[in-house]
Amino acid sequence: MSAYSISATVPLDNAAQLEETLRHIGATRYHSLHPFHKLLHGGKLNKGQVQAWALNRYYYQSTIPIKDAVVISRFRDRATRQEWRHRIEDHDGDTGAEGGIERWRKLTEGLGLDSAYVESTEGILPATRFAVEAYVHFVRDRTPLEAIASSLTELFAPNLHEERISGMLKYYDFVNPDIMSYFSRRLTQAPRDAGFALDYVKQHATTPAERRAVCNALIFKTNVLWVQLDALYHAYVDGHVPPGAFVPAK
Amino acid sequence: MSAYSISATVPLDNAAQLEETLRHIGATRYHSLHPFHKLLHGGKLNKGQVQAWALNRYYYQSTIPIKDAVVISRFRDRATRQEWRHRIEDHDGDTGAEGGIERWRKLTEGLGLDSAYVESTEGILPATRFAVEAYVHFVRDRTPLEAIASSLTELFAPNLHEERISGMLKYYDFVNPDIMSYFSRRLTQAPRDAGFALDYVKQHATTPAERRAVCNALIFKTNVLWVQLDALYHAYVDGHVPPGAFVPAK
Repeated sequence: MSAYSISATVPLDNAAQLEETLRHIGATRYHSLHPFHKLLHGGKLNKGQVQAWALNRYYYQSTIPIKDAVVISRFRDRATRQEWRHRIEDHDGDTGAEGGIERWRKLTEGLGLDSAYVESTEGILPATRFAVEAYVHFVRDRTPLEAIASSLTELFAPNLHEERISGMLKYYDFVNPDIMSYFSRRLTQAPRDAGFALDYVKQHATTPAERRAVCNALIFKTNVLWVQLDALYHAYVDGHVPPGAFVPAK
Repeated sequence: MSAYSISATVPLDNAAQLEETLRHIGATRYHSLHPFHKLLHGGKLNKGQVQAWALNRYYYQSTIPIKDAVVISRFRDRATRQEWRHRIEDHDGDTGAEGGIERWRKLTEGLGLDSAYVESTEGILPATRFAVEAYVHFVRDRTPLEAIASSLTELFAPNLHEERISGMLKYYDFVNPDIMSYFSRRLTQAPRDAGFALDYVKQHATTPAERRAVCNALIFKTNVLWVQLDALYHAYVDGHVPPGAFVPAK
């Protein structure tokens, strides 16, 4: 497996081999394996470093409905648009119904960050912006099949969220269950969404070449997530904050 | 100045104030200031680290003509398209005329990298790909004025290239003048191109808001360059190579 594609020797002759390969990519490339998450979930970060993570991740969270709107726009098939539509509502919420972005803002607020600053996204790392925007461009520019496949990291999210909730509540006195509500909510949302996407790619990728494209779309998405943590680690663990980016209060 | 925009208090009432602000951005944000370049030009990197830099930078170099073709496509004005066109030839070359990409390939080849591997771009850092692609998306999606303004980092390139040529020839026995021909050639190309772009934005940005957009386009571009060096530093100086990316031979 290169940084972008699986080996040409991986057999992808049927849906079962596709799912097996997708799960192998998750087991070897998902950002649950990233050193920054080990620090975050193990209580090894200070409050400023956790703030930097939440601030940057807000940009990812707040871009997801835009990404999903682009995904919907790729489908003439009304049934697929109907199925995908709830993802926008899950994140944007509705009148009197809190969504994922609002839950994430509660997290950044609970961590002591000014919401206007968070929502301005002026302090995020440029690498965060480039990686997140690459995700939006990907679902716009690649095939609809690849657009759906790039969401498959959700297959691996629940375990990560459980580890995050327990670890952060256990180790950080500045974290409480209320500000972690984003993750507890995703524990039920992600499996439903991932289940649909997995069934979709298994059904609609009908050739080895299409199955390979599905696998490489998942690798792309693991890169989108990994790059964000590499940038956080470089800036806020190793201390190389780029010009103009968020600097935690001493 | 935030990571993305200049302060709202910076006066931009005329072309002279615009140029002054652009030069201030270069003096404070250009990647000549990046720690990785200090190491590269000071002889502090090993051959594998220099290979990683050249391998990743090849992706940037080989994308520039694509970026410039998009810039050309933004202009109905034939004179601007005529003026910009030579940039594509500078990098792509012509029959019997070597271009910048070929010169860069000679650099990677001279550093002992397999050209097929370099040209495949399969080993570059995902952050490199995201940053470089963000540049192409920027010139496609922003105004033509911002597209031209984003090239203004070339104002600051000659000093960097002179420092690079002398430093790398002085410190690295695996570097010779022949494989450094890309940089010596750019010493004459960059000032001509930067001069046109600077005159263009000074003439066509006629309101403070347009001058601000020009400044922020240059800040964007400094981020495109800075992110690439942050990623190289994290992967090849601090040793956090992401999954599947180039690993120098021991």
